Amino acid sequence: MLEQLDKQFVLQTYKRNYVNFKKGINATLFDETDRDYIDFTSGIGVVSVGHGNKEVADAICKQANNIIHISNLYAIEPQAKLAEKIAKLSEMDVATFFANSGAEANEGAIKIARKYGETKFDKKRYKVITLEHSFHGRTITTVKATGQASMHSPNFAPYPDGFKYDARIDDIYNSIDDETVAVMIELVQGEGGVQPFEKKDIQELAKFLKEQGILLIIDEVQSGVYRTGEFLASNLYEIEPDIITLAKGLGGGVPIGAVVTKHKDIFEAGDHGSTFGGNYLSTAAASKVVDILDEYKNSGQLDETIIYFDSKLNELIKKYPELLLEKVGVGLMKGIRIKDADSLAAIISKAFEEGVLVLRAGKNTLRLLPPLTISKKEIDEGFKRLENALSKIS
Amino acid sequence: MLEQLDKQFVLQTYKRNYVNFKKGINATLFDETDRDYIDFTSGIGVVSVGHGNKEVADAICKQANNIIHISNLYAIEPQAKLAEKIAKLSEMDVATFFANSGAEANEGAIKIARKYGETKFDKKRYKVITLEHSFHGRTITTVKATGQASMHSPNFAPYPDGFKYDARIDDIYNSIDDETVAVMIELVQGEGGVQPFEKKDIQELAKFLKEQGILLIIDEVQSGVYRTGEFLASNLYEIEPDIITLAKGLGGGVPIGAVVTKHKDIFEAGDHGSTFGGNYLSTAAASKVVDILDEYKNSGQLDETIIYFDSKLNELIKKYPELLLEKVGVGLMKGIRIKDADSLAAIISKAFEEGVLVLRAGKNTLRLLPPLTISKKEIDEGFKRLENALSKIS
Repeated sequence: MLEQLDKQFVLQTYKRNYVNFKKGINATLFDETDRDYIDFTSGIGVVSVGHGNKEVADAICKQANNIIHISNLYAIEPQAKLAEKIAKLSEMDVATFFANSGAEANEGAIKIARKYGETKFDKKRYKVITLEHSFHGRTITTVKATGQASMHSPNFAPYPDGFKYDARIDDIYNSIDDETVAVMIELVQGEGGVQPFEKKDIQELAKFLKEQGILLIIDEVQSGVYRTGEFLASNLYEIEPDIITLAKGLGGGVPIGAVVTKHKDIFEAGDHGSTFGGNYLSTAAASKVVDILDEYKNSGQLDETIIYFDSKLNELIKKYPELLLEKVGVGLMKGIRIKDADSLAAIISKAFEEGVLVLRAGKNTLRLLPPLTISKKEIDEGFKRLENALSKIS
Repeated sequence: MLEQLDKQFVLQTYKRNYVNFKKGINATLFDETDRDYIDFTSGIGVVSVGHGNKEVADAICKQANNIIHISNLYAIEPQAKLAEKIAKLSEMDVATFFANSGAEANEGAIKIARKYGETKFDKKRYKVITLEHSFHGRTITTVKATGQASMHSPNFAPYPDGFKYDARIDDIYNSIDDETVAVMIELVQGEGGVQPFEKKDIQELAKFLKEQGILLIIDEVQSGVYRTGEFLASNLYEIEPDIITLAKGLGGGVPIGAVVTKHKDIFEAGDHGSTFGGNYLSTAAASKVVDILDEYKNSGQLDETIIYFDSKLNELIKKYPELLLEKVGVGLMKGIRIKDADSLAAIISKAFEEGVLVLRAGKNTLRLLPPLTISKKEIDEGFKRLENALSKIS
């Protein structure tokens, strides 16, 4: 019934699993037959504080009964307060523009970089260097910014010029020319295989770019808002990028994106805008999410959860050395390199049958992005089910 | 305090009014001093069912306590049901892709058109014709699709190729060449002056494009979801476009966008995507909004409200013939041509002082986009305040 409805009325851009989830409690989802699933995906890193989070739901309810939205032509108090929280937690002197998604946040970042390149140099600079295996979004420009040749289909051309792709961080140094205005990278490539870059390499790059006056854009759409164990992956790497983009985990599921930048004066009135961006509902929800996670971090619970999840992951990998090659990732953004793509597909499918939801990243990485608030009991149950799945494959 | 917070932490892309709205009831907003304002803007056409709408708030609350978001890798029942409602109410054989904003919806429409142009012709077609004074969004591609030279700032270049602008509907015929794949227009230009095109001209254009195999994209980001008195402005114009985009009024304030198309099979899995798009929260809210407005329309109340608002507008224009030149628009998407831009700015400012919120469109149009559910009492009060404002200017 749901499958038929979906296939008839929704454009088929995903090969969907036709389970019908009806209820969620923290990291546990229930389908229409009341079967439960442990969610190691959190909607691709979105439901950072868990499903059905009471505090977030209350904040949303209260706001929805009051004001959901007015235009950005008027000041919006929860928006300003969320921007203040982001600045405080990032420990940087930054201001924020609110958008509605990661793609929109990255569009904003690219617009800032381009205006910087147009206005701050004698000769216009406009090129943005990104990395192979990156993912920056689904708009025409962010598709082109994405360093995957397979994404640059002629179907959606012509794309805007001004993007260049490097295979490794080291290559960026030689790649920069007098038209380069920015380098845009993820610190842990979410879609690209959950491989964190070396802290030393990133710090050296940041230092070099600063010396050259070239902007560093860190795409934290997936890694931001405590996913790596710190508020920002940039905090973990101890760098101060020029621009940081946020989205997935920020709103607890309410669509929101954010462009966070030290260049507070680069945009003038009229340079950019958004009708929905930063409205009462999305920023009230995001404020609550950030408060919850700030407290969760400060109490030591987040680190405890990360350590516990990690220990279970290590145990699992030890048990299936031929199938599970290596652990990658950081915080609760974890991956397991799988022997081959066929095995990966089999694991994801079998895991679902056993009642645990997991993700793919790149060709051969099993990606685990549980809610940050996942309980030990849910972690235990999830890994038990994942092991059941593996035992049926090996 | 709010002004200081905003200026310190939010990128200043709007010249904001620093009123601090704390509560909304239908078309009435209250600031922190409990002063009330009649809202003739509805957040630029977003809050279609009014502020603090109890039914929408309840739907949002219920959904937030349950599941806000899972990924599009799994079926999402409220998404499929909303897509079904859109198809039914549009009276067309269409399927929908859900995005998070009008800009994202238009990106999706352009991607569909381009894939159509790449795959359905012997020789690639990729050019999209849009109209001068149009507005299609703030991403780099939709900025370029927007037919306003002032929007194509070198600051944000390079833009993608493939857009051409015509001044009038009639010009489109000569403008089409063998690389043209689509014509993308608003039926009532929201930002461009609230001037509806002639029904006959649009129907002729639609017929011609169909004969030529060229796609017609109607941007209904502002005109859609009963704003014109019909579910779609396309219904009012009695045309069946190839692609329709929706956003503002669809979610009652929850960020959502939609690409609605007859070309159900043009996208394959992987061609497009969105993390947040079509999630439980936004589609549950939008479903409730659409249900409320469907009933409101069927009961005759929407038409009654439109007629009443129109009569008050006519009265007002009659009283100030030297300042208010002409009424434009359709349904509850109305405008008044003002003598000059300075007078328009004065009216907007004075209206705010008198406690009624109004918008600008283009250079010399006062734009009125009240909630569709505005009461007669609120209409009376709003026009009384607007008249107070005008009496202090004339």
